[in-house]
Amino acid sequence: MAIMRDEILEQAGIVARLAADPQPYRAAAREARACGARFVLYAARGTSDNAAVYGKYLATILAGLPAGLAVPSAATVYGASIDFRDCLVIGISQSGETPDVAEYVEQARAAGAFTLAVTNDEGSLLASSAHLMLATHAGAERAVAATKTYTSQLAALALFWSAWTGADALAGALSDDVPAAMAAACAVEADVQSVAARLSHADRLLVTARGYNYATALETALKVKETCYLAAMPFSAADLMHGPIAVVEPRFPVLLYAAPGKTLAGMLALDAELRRRGAETFVVADPRTPVPGSATTLRVPLAVPEELTPLVAVLPGQLLALHLSLARGLDPDSPRGLSKVTRT
Amino acid sequence: MAIMRDEILEQAGIVARLAADPQPYRAAAREARACGARFVLYAARGTSDNAAVYGKYLATILAGLPAGLAVPSAATVYGASIDFRDCLVIGISQSGETPDVAEYVEQARAAGAFTLAVTNDEGSLLASSAHLMLATHAGAERAVAATKTYTSQLAALALFWSAWTGADALAGALSDDVPAAMAAACAVEADVQSVAARLSHADRLLVTARGYNYATALETALKVKETCYLAAMPFSAADLMHGPIAVVEPRFPVLLYAAPGKTLAGMLALDAELRRRGAETFVVADPRTPVPGSATTLRVPLAVPEELTPLVAVLPGQLLALHLSLARGLDPDSPRGLSKVTRT
Repeated sequence: MAIMRDEILEQAGIVARLAADPQPYRAAAREARACGARFVLYAARGTSDNAAVYGKYLATILAGLPAGLAVPSAATVYGASIDFRDCLVIGISQSGETPDVAEYVEQARAAGAFTLAVTNDEGSLLASSAHLMLATHAGAERAVAATKTYTSQLAALALFWSAWTGADALAGALSDDVPAAMAAACAVEADVQSVAARLSHADRLLVTARGYNYATALETALKVKETCYLAAMPFSAADLMHGPIAVVEPRFPVLLYAAPGKTLAGMLALDAELRRRGAETFVVADPRTPVPGSATTLRVPLAVPEELTPLVAVLPGQLLALHLSLARGLDPDSPRGLSKVTRT
Repeated sequence: MAIMRDEILEQAGIVARLAADPQPYRAAAREARACGARFVLYAARGTSDNAAVYGKYLATILAGLPAGLAVPSAATVYGASIDFRDCLVIGISQSGETPDVAEYVEQARAAGAFTLAVTNDEGSLLASSAHLMLATHAGAERAVAATKTYTSQLAALALFWSAWTGADALAGALSDDVPAAMAAACAVEADVQSVAARLSHADRLLVTARGYNYATALETALKVKETCYLAAMPFSAADLMHGPIAVVEPRFPVLLYAAPGKTLAGMLALDAELRRRGAETFVVADPRTPVPGSATTLRVPLAVPEELTPLVAVLPGQLLALHLSLARGLDPDSPRGLSKVTRT
């Protein structure tokens, strides 16, 4: 079977090991706070950019700091002079070798930002560009489609922001309940294979979620594009209603994340609305969440703190990308025309 | 013909009229600066969110201020308490009646932000939520798919940020060269109709641009989804290379924006790379830009300041959405399942 599958299955262990040593995150949070950081910017591309979206929600909701995704081209293409005082700039890159991310972080640092690198390569360009480096310790990722480095980035960000806010319960859950839920979630694989068989001739897919799991929708859609070449379109549930829902015609396939928490009721209402329009919905939900009227529900344990559900919820998404690729006779480990390090 | 077409053709005049009176923008910029705004957050949904992306580039590159798109659900779903001191929060909504945008602005205002509403309805909820209101004066928009309110939002943002930086040349171009280019760009309609005929049976479309015109790619893809129900996928050229380019197979249709300026060389290189992979590219470019090897080039006058090219470049995108909808036997004025005001 594929390398990608091995790496998906490794994820629970990697997160548990990362969370077992929260010291570097506490030190980084202490130092960033001491520098007076009040505004947060993430610089990243691809899968790391989806982790950055998760980080943006953590910074905003958990830490109460205004946060956004950077415009790397502002620094690297347009040569803008940006006032980075009181900014925390977090560069995220698996390889640490995405030149525009490293360059953005370097320029931000020179212009007064406190800078942090989240990377899987401690000797990388990005690592040396930032004040501090948080290694994701996921081991070498051999599949081109990133999986274990994505969840290790999520874990690193969750550890950092829970250290920032002193939310020890979150850090605790990350070393214990979350890896357990991630390991248990792999049992959804057989059901995912049925969904993959059903979608094997689809050429479009809508993926939707809200809140913390918006990142999960983005990352699932990216994986499906990379390994299955489907036109996978991710939307926050709110944005979907502002126009894109028009694409939904009878039998349009939709993958919908309905994690427990503050967004659950809205996601279930959206599921009903999509089915009313004739869509074929596949709902990712906790075993204890009733999903009225749904034909296909992918059950994974999501009864962890809501902030941490993205670490578990993405597993069925990753597995779907893997099995849909196989069902279409493709090689998930070698997406057409991609390489592991992208230079932009 | 469609109401949407009438409204597309109105745009040059609306921008000229808006730019003829830069006073409100100067006053707003003066007041925002006086309040010490150093970080910028935009709250918006749908088409207005695409205008917000443009605004984010203007704030970052032109004014050198860190800027991001807000997480409306942080305030409205999660009840986060956000430290908005020194923040400029700009809510954008055509109707001004998107509840979560208005609520976010209201909460930001209460928590110390200086707030600005960009709306087409001076009596709206959003208008009354913010410290100051910048009306887009586009007149009633009758088509569900927003066109003239989008370009009037772009014009309002460009006027505000050029007032902020004292870039009088930009404000001047907005009242003169830009409306002239927008009016002249409508002559591309016949060529757009040929492209629409060619795409009438397509079910997927990739739309790509970089820099200021990333917003143009986002908005074109949204229009095409809304009125033609295609799986239209927008990407910044840099993000495209980080994975999504795998979807491109022989004859995959791509709409590519190659506006003059700092991103032009990269966009032309991307066009060549996409064609090497077998994609069928449709390139939007200025008449004086050589586009080597391209089969189909949509020529619109883009020799205006680079920051303002999005006001002109979006015209062929809007016209494509219109004519592709008609070519598919649809009614562009009544997208399936959408209404003019969306409540999320």
